[in-house]
Amino acid sequence: MNADPAATASVGLVESKRASFDEPLRLKGGAVLPQFDIAYETYGELNASRSNAVLVCHALNASHHVAGHYAGDARDVGWWDNLVGPGKPLDTRRFFVVGSNYLGSCFGSTGPASINPATGKPWGADFPLVTVEDWVAAQARLADRLGIERFAAAIGGSLGAMQALQWTLSFPERVRHAIVIAATPRLSAQNIAFNEVARQAIMTDPDFHGGHYYDQGVVPRRGLRIARMIGHITYLSDDAMMEKFGRVLRGKSGPRFDFDIDFEIESYLRYQGDKFASYFDANTYLRITKALDYYDPAADFGGDLAAAVARAQAAFLVVSFTSDWRFSTTRSREIVRALLEAHKIVSYVEVDAPQGHDAFLMDDPRYHGALRAYFDSIDL
Amino acid sequence: MNADPAATASVGLVESKRASFDEPLRLKGGAVLPQFDIAYETYGELNASRSNAVLVCHALNASHHVAGHYAGDARDVGWWDNLVGPGKPLDTRRFFVVGSNYLGSCFGSTGPASINPATGKPWGADFPLVTVEDWVAAQARLADRLGIERFAAAIGGSLGAMQALQWTLSFPERVRHAIVIAATPRLSAQNIAFNEVARQAIMTDPDFHGGHYYDQGVVPRRGLRIARMIGHITYLSDDAMMEKFGRVLRGKSGPRFDFDIDFEIESYLRYQGDKFASYFDANTYLRITKALDYYDPAADFGGDLAAAVARAQAAFLVVSFTSDWRFSTTRSREIVRALLEAHKIVSYVEVDAPQGHDAFLMDDPRYHGALRAYFDSIDL
Repeated sequence: MNADPAATASVGLVESKRASFDEPLRLKGGAVLPQFDIAYETYGELNASRSNAVLVCHALNASHHVAGHYAGDARDVGWWDNLVGPGKPLDTRRFFVVGSNYLGSCFGSTGPASINPATGKPWGADFPLVTVEDWVAAQARLADRLGIERFAAAIGGSLGAMQALQWTLSFPERVRHAIVIAATPRLSAQNIAFNEVARQAIMTDPDFHGGHYYDQGVVPRRGLRIARMIGHITYLSDDAMMEKFGRVLRGKSGPRFDFDIDFEIESYLRYQGDKFASYFDANTYLRITKALDYYDPAADFGGDLAAAVARAQAAFLVVSFTSDWRFSTTRSREIVRALLEAHKIVSYVEVDAPQGHDAFLMDDPRYHGALRAYFDSIDL
Repeated sequence: MNADPAATASVGLVESKRASFDEPLRLKGGAVLPQFDIAYETYGELNASRSNAVLVCHALNASHHVAGHYAGDARDVGWWDNLVGPGKPLDTRRFFVVGSNYLGSCFGSTGPASINPATGKPWGADFPLVTVEDWVAAQARLADRLGIERFAAAIGGSLGAMQALQWTLSFPERVRHAIVIAATPRLSAQNIAFNEVARQAIMTDPDFHGGHYYDQGVVPRRGLRIARMIGHITYLSDDAMMEKFGRVLRGKSGPRFDFDIDFEIESYLRYQGDKFASYFDANTYLRITKALDYYDPAADFGGDLAAAVARAQAAFLVVSFTSDWRFSTTRSREIVRALLEAHKIVSYVEVDAPQGHDAFLMDDPRYHGALRAYFDSIDL
């Protein structure tokens, strides 16, 4: 509503909440979760007509901590804080924003590290594989709990975008707008290949113990570190990496001629890998990459994406970034084409941005301007 | 000379040879190799004027076994057999072809698995880092031994192309033509990043033992496997991978919902990784990737590649492939631009090929036609 950036503010202090569900959830793969928790946060107020709720879906390594900060740690700012807040493109003075964690996560929702009620021990390798469809089904339970019959919008980038798209297919009548950013309708063989290498790095780590490492007092840190390094390369464009790190050597006098850190990019990747391995759960990583690999809404329609999206009732905004080589603009265009062919209402913005896949996290003016305009146009 | 494919033949039975050099070699990094061997093969006959020798330089995971096959194994065909032979583009009826292994390799030349004369045990982690410049210096010793004062041409793809280029800079008077295929004048930050992840996978494998695994009766097989999988993804284009493997599932009835092999691409990568880990030496892999990272002929000229190539006396043929994202056509164009700016004789062919970086190994008619025409044009 307010386009003056000077008028924007943080949502401020927030707290992580948790909703518990006792009705069993049958998963796409056939397994049944007897009960589960979903971690979430909310910002803003649900209006009297309950028409202003926006669901924010997160990607691989983020969480339901979308905006604001926790008590005692002002630096632990939500991952999409530049988008969500008073006066920001997704304006919390107007919308009631729900950040939902997904099932199988290691950030508060029920996942592999949770206690399996059947054994009294962590699920570990026995935690079932969960899919994008399962995540959306669990989020629908959360919506019920919060008294949200219909979301004004579901929004997400990357894996989050798949959830936003799937909302329009699993619950067509429960979402009015879907904002699908840096997405793909299904992973390519190359995408799957990168995921598979990451999984193999984790599963061949001697500390993996077949996924039952919680009892062993170890975590497959080496494998997780490699997995994160691989992932990170695919999040950045070649140009962005060259711009940021170039071939800059750490040693002032030339290469070291050993295997310690020569180039800044090596230092950066090792740092990112170590950090990730210190907090992320390996069993979760394995399951999320599988959820990515499996997602393919057109599969049940003989590969016809237009047929797959025919049941959607939402209007769509699709956003892609020119330098994204993980999920390239071509993949977003496939989604747009299918939506057009299915006679859906669709807007498409291709943002000329250098950052690669991670551009969806940046606050590029054209990108955020498009999101602001779109949210402003949603009637409540 | 003979453009009729029907007239081409294999060079037939070949044998791996080895040349030993007792004069110490001072490496770019400062270390001195007291003595070393270079493994090589030759095809065709050196003519009376010794003017028809062509040096073939190999890439990361190949060897000096360029063409023909070994006794007892007709299937062990050289890696560039489609290019080198009687009637083939690099015609062994006309040229004397030398396939040279590089220093530090695990295919016969002195490398980390060789015995360190100072200790009587394998070099292991103590084997020095070798550079493209060092490889070329060692190959020059081999040329001396074979009585080749000047090569008619040096040719290579990828890492082999760096060697062909470096020949024109280290020994300008000793090479008349350089054929530089699928090359880059220096690795990008993304290229280095992929190499670094591969190295980290190897070095964090508990069986690596700091590089002294030969004594332990183990090899860091898990790390090598991951390294090879990562490399393999970068050798193929996204399109080629999609064309070859798509999202084809191994199971007929759908996804498995476990971590065994779902997609064909996973099966392929695991197979390639396992095969590679069964024969390639981890210490060699570490050193080759470092040689790649370090190569930057413009570095001593303030980044000015044209200044760096000014001393070359060779004529150049540069070949790139449209779908190569590891070393894209843009990188080959940088080489061509620098050569033009330095007033060198240069031909450039950009081949529209779908295979990605590995296209340099294929026998695409336009690609091989260009090489054939170029070799035919070389006066002897």
